[in-house]
Amino acid sequence: MSVRKYISIILLWSCALNAAAQTSEPATQSKAQPVSQHHLMPVPSSVRFNQGRLSITKSFTLAAKGYVDDRLRAGVDRMIKRLEGRTVLEFERGLLVDANAATLVVEAQGAGYDVPSVEENESYSLEVSDKQATLRAPTVVGVLRGLETFLQLLESDREGYFIPAVQIQDQPRFRWRGLLIDIGRHFEPMEVIKRNLDAMAALKLNVFHWHLTEDQGFRIESKKFPKLHEMGSDGLYYTQAEAREVINYARERGIRVVPEFDIPGHATSWLVGYPELGSAPGPYQIERRPGIFEPALDPTREEVYKFLDQFLGEMAALFPDAYMHIGGDENEGKQWDRNPQIQAFMKKKGIKDNRALQTYFNQRLLQILKKHGKRMMGWDEIFQPDLPKDTVIQSWRGPKALAEAARRGYDGILSNGYYIDLMQPASAHYKNDPLPADSGLSLAEAAHVLGGEATMWGEWVSPETIDSRIWPRTAAIAERLWSPREVNDVEDMYRRLNIISVQLEELGLTHEKNQQMMLRRLAQGKQVRALQTLVSVLEPVKEYRRYQQRPQTMLSPLTGLVDAARPDSEAARRFAALVNELLLDAPRFESRAFEIENTLSDWRGAGTELEAMIDASPALHEAAPLANDLSQIGAAGLEALSFLRRGVAPSTQWRDSRLLMLEQAAKPKAALEFPIISSVKELIIAAYELPQLKTMPPSEWRKRVKQLVVGAKQ
Amino acid sequence: MSVRKYISIILLWSCALNAAAQTSEPATQSKAQPVSQHHLMPVPSSVRFNQGRLSITKSFTLAAKGYVDDRLRAGVDRMIKRLEGRTVLEFERGLLVDANAATLVVEAQGAGYDVPSVEENESYSLEVSDKQATLRAPTVVGVLRGLETFLQLLESDREGYFIPAVQIQDQPRFRWRGLLIDIGRHFEPMEVIKRNLDAMAALKLNVFHWHLTEDQGFRIESKKFPKLHEMGSDGLYYTQAEAREVINYARERGIRVVPEFDIPGHATSWLVGYPELGSAPGPYQIERRPGIFEPALDPTREEVYKFLDQFLGEMAALFPDAYMHIGGDENEGKQWDRNPQIQAFMKKKGIKDNRALQTYFNQRLLQILKKHGKRMMGWDEIFQPDLPKDTVIQSWRGPKALAEAARRGYDGILSNGYYIDLMQPASAHYKNDPLPADSGLSLAEAAHVLGGEATMWGEWVSPETIDSRIWPRTAAIAERLWSPREVNDVEDMYRRLNIISVQLEELGLTHEKNQQMMLRRLAQGKQVRALQTLVSVLEPVKEYRRYQQRPQTMLSPLTGLVDAARPDSEAARRFAALVNELLLDAPRFESRAFEIENTLSDWRGAGTELEAMIDASPALHEAAPLANDLSQIGAAGLEALSFLRRGVAPSTQWRDSRLLMLEQAAKPKAALEFPIISSVKELIIAAYELPQLKTMPPSEWRKRVKQLVVGAKQ
Repeated sequence: MSVRKYISIILLWSCALNAAAQTSEPATQSKAQPVSQHHLMPVPSSVRFNQGRLSITKSFTLAAKGYVDDRLRAGVDRMIKRLEGRTVLEFERGLLVDANAATLVVEAQGAGYDVPSVEENESYSLEVSDKQATLRAPTVVGVLRGLETFLQLLESDREGYFIPAVQIQDQPRFRWRGLLIDIGRHFEPMEVIKRNLDAMAALKLNVFHWHLTEDQGFRIESKKFPKLHEMGSDGLYYTQAEAREVINYARERGIRVVPEFDIPGHATSWLVGYPELGSAPGPYQIERRPGIFEPALDPTREEVYKFLDQFLGEMAALFPDAYMHIGGDENEGKQWDRNPQIQAFMKKKGIKDNRALQTYFNQRLLQILKKHGKRMMGWDEIFQPDLPKDTVIQSWRGPKALAEAARRGYDGILSNGYYIDLMQPASAHYKNDPLPADSGLSLAEAAHVLGGEATMWGEWVSPETIDSRIWPRTAAIAERLWSPREVNDVEDMYRRLNIISVQLEELGLTHEKNQQMMLRRLAQGKQVRALQTLVSVLEPVKEYRRYQQRPQTMLSPLTGLVDAARPDSEAARRFAALVNELLLDAPRFESRAFEIENTLSDWRGAGTELEAMIDASPALHEAAPLANDLSQIGAAGLEALSFLRRGVAPSTQWRDSRLLMLEQAAKPKAALEFPIISSVKELIIAAYELPQLKTMPPSEWRKRVKQLVVGAKQ
Repeated sequence: MSVRKYISIILLWSCALNAAAQTSEPATQSKAQPVSQHHLMPVPSSVRFNQGRLSITKSFTLAAKGYVDDRLRAGVDRMIKRLEGRTVLEFERGLLVDANAATLVVEAQGAGYDVPSVEENESYSLEVSDKQATLRAPTVVGVLRGLETFLQLLESDREGYFIPAVQIQDQPRFRWRGLLIDIGRHFEPMEVIKRNLDAMAALKLNVFHWHLTEDQGFRIESKKFPKLHEMGSDGLYYTQAEAREVINYARERGIRVVPEFDIPGHATSWLVGYPELGSAPGPYQIERRPGIFEPALDPTREEVYKFLDQFLGEMAALFPDAYMHIGGDENEGKQWDRNPQIQAFMKKKGIKDNRALQTYFNQRLLQILKKHGKRMMGWDEIFQPDLPKDTVIQSWRGPKALAEAARRGYDGILSNGYYIDLMQPASAHYKNDPLPADSGLSLAEAAHVLGGEATMWGEWVSPETIDSRIWPRTAAIAERLWSPREVNDVEDMYRRLNIISVQLEELGLTHEKNQQMMLRRLAQGKQVRALQTLVSVLEPVKEYRRYQQRPQTMLSPLTGLVDAARPDSEAARRFAALVNELLLDAPRFESRAFEIENTLSDWRGAGTELEAMIDASPALHEAAPLANDLSQIGAAGLEALSFLRRGVAPSTQWRDSRLLMLEQAAKPKAALEFPIISSVKELIIAAYELPQLKTMPPSEWRKRVKQLVVGAKQ
């Protein structure tokens, strides 16, 4: 992704977010029970809890009625192992013959599609009484979805583990719910892919979009053109056997694998081994920088199509999914402009510009894909006149572009707003609907909006950090794509996200546990409490600012503090909630004052404590100003708290100096920023405005403080 | 391993430890510099630090002189990546041509053995000045060993990263330094094996002993006899391609792979698919329990040898190492006793007992292995009259048995005392010398003692926990096997172990980070501080008591508190050191009193805090008495501290009731025990004995308290 495109995305997205904010969708819950009663994610389309509970003891058993196959059996085994892991109970293995005696009965009507399909019926029903649970589904994939719900229903108290009595009817709102992982920029080993497929299945996602080629790496073995992976990957690629292993692993979990071969741009790595495919003579080297680059396939030469026919044919045989993604994004055509042969070709054929030339290229590609039995899929740019209607458009431009395509009869999926590499909070993704209530589409048109995909672009992720960039935020996207539109309570989403995040760890995900490991490496030892405090209130800068502030290449170590930090700071959210409670407790200001004081003292202390560690660890030198900021933020917050509790307003000078300090602290350093600034600012402004308080009721007072914070000089 | 054998091991080992304690070896350092100056592990045979330092900046470069091959290049690349990870600096890739300009010059004289060999020369020298570092070795493996030392030398301060000026001459004391991983009882995926190979290389271990078959699982693909892995493994086995991947991965790191096929006993899993090989008719099922079982191959039938000839021939072609391990342990011959044909065979051949029958079996095996070009290796039991001299004996009986074999001219390695599954502290393993100073062996005889192997028996380890059972303790064993005998300062070993433990994490090891993950699962949430406090002062019960106290099978979940707890509690060691300082500070008792008070308050508080969590998490119910114990231990310690500091002795009644409480707390619960009991007992007895103090100097007083603690009723 280039900076240029970055900016357009940001603008488009900001608009989308503003629009969403203005629509002010009704915050009502659908048919679902108040979600405060459960931690299901995604929330099923219909949930009704009843009186009673089904005890889960070591005599738990499972029976299958109806259709049974190896995939169902394996899915049941995985569920049982996780249930055992959580309860530390050992259950009987295998399926009981006598369904009456079983704790859980699963009943599939049939296998479903042999190759996972966008047409798959994923619905299921789950009924739990205090005697038995029954999970019914038309397909094995439906059963797999229901088993995840069953696991999420597990509760416990002093009496033991149990599943509450419940009736669930569930099916997805959208049938394309994907996660793109870009292993072009940074390669990810097999176990990373596998554990993320497990996590996807836990959240009922059903498409793994495998972005296999990039300027920075060609990551799939080609037996026909071995120089592609041999020269384009630094040896970091998946063999075809491994690709089959991934496809099978995904299939076992009801997940499709859509491979992407990004052409004609983003193709530098192809040209290292086969420079003759390029639009300039070469030689080419694997790209190490992030950004948009010039190398592009030459769309005017027949040899290129012959090559693509053979290569894509090989890939079409390897990847069984009905769709193949050909990328098509961000080709600026600079090589084309400079190539006289290409220019002559365009003149001869009456192709008026590069856009039209790429359309010509896409039309040729389409024929090739058709020949190999695949439906074509590409990014927004492929949406051009004459595009056949069975093409799928993946939109990085936004819901409006998607709706426009749907209106014209094209299938599409949304990725704008789901760019999880941009470090936005889960709440922002959660509010982003592929099919907003005000889309204005008819029912038939709306059916063309297939769903969406979270996109894990790989510029700044390593096997150590990628899980923490995908999870738990992608669970919020998964809910948006599965649950009814009306399920949109952000606070409740976060409550459940915390629980789901811990559950994901049982699948081997490292999003929680790798942070402390990385801090220990930076600190060169085990004492990382203060560093942990600092990093818990820091977030990597959002959008595309990381590279601007802290340029690195694809070969740089991703082991700095910014890599250990995670988006969507839970500590900051918690602090904001505490401050809110405190300020609503006017004029006493006692509610939560104890926790706030502790937190602020902790910040103040950590900053000081960190000085020696930072001094001794050069890799942490970039964090020195952040530690200093944290101390000052903590100290200012404590002062404000003290004013509030004593009912004494500070001087204007005090306020101004503290706001100035916050202004400095708000500037990103080491590509990190504090998401706690505005909460502390609220404390400071509230303290200063104390005299006004006497004239207002607490809720109005609270509103006024928020206005003042927004109004205060940033 | 059976309970019976367990007990004999314990007895033998206790004797060994007592013997070691009595020898009171000199605690002097060898030629090496005082180790407090570095954190090298294993300590090199000769280290001399000089004035000066070599700065490590982003302009770090590396050049190679002399012999260069892909293995050396890959080793250099791995080292550079780790150096980058720690420093968050990006270095130039590849080898410089101009050695004069390089920060580090490596110079190998030759490749060494193509297949890693017990004869490999692993020595190296490393000279670091403030201009350049030079690493010289006769082989590439020597260079790999030196690169690990180079990485361990990395230091930092305010000025940046650097390597201190130093001269190191290094070679191993023993040439067989191994780690056995039993993947028969519990299978471990490829990434577990690989990351442990990386850790082995970091500690300069050179033999991966792959225990591939057990009653509970046959874990290697046989193309000749596919029912072995298909029916004997639950589908959990390594394909031959994966085995080759492991062999190559190990070779790249200068590590041999010695496969073990444990026969004639421990062979239940073989017989599931091929019952006709057994000494009783079958059918057989994969064993799920721990222990010693009856199934054994029939040593009287020619078909069995024909089978073994083909199977071991297939394995001999797969595994290139010169040695093949045939197990040979713990066959009690009960099936043989009951089989009339076997009895008739013995009568006819004049084989007087089962031991002799197994010797007959071994002789036949030996011929088969010879035919396939392998040297035979087996456990103590194979050491019988007529055993050919090129057989290697792996001793679980102890250094005496090993010395006896050496005296008779047999090569041997020590595993007794290195059974890391027994949950002993690193210090116990560290003191265990394969060739004690008092062995009485001649130099020529001593040369038969090749080294030793840590043995990770797999009854109670999962992919989540195995790293924490192997590391960091195995680093202490690695040092025993590499460093001079005189390097034996336990306290300093622990100081360095803490640093090494964090460094191992950069290789993906999970021994540190998985504990909190497991606690989060048990607590069903992220708030695990109190649980962390509890588990930090608990250790799994030692030796073979876990199964007795908390029986499970090979299919049981290993996700309980005992699985999250780790051997060799660091918190307990630290507390013991604090108490020691306090008691030496008589009669003031102020030194470290603050930390001790904080720690004890933390314990008292955690116990109380845990009540609600335990109540809500049935999997933690077994921890309820432990939480209660911890509160009481903390409270009693605080009282004792208060008496000491006030200079007031408590009543006899107080002492007796507190000692009684400790006696109860000392009883293992949930297969866990408190290693802090004796330190708290010291506080209590010291408080009670206060009046005596006035008559003694602090050091004598300290001695007296220790005596009283030992004398106090346990």
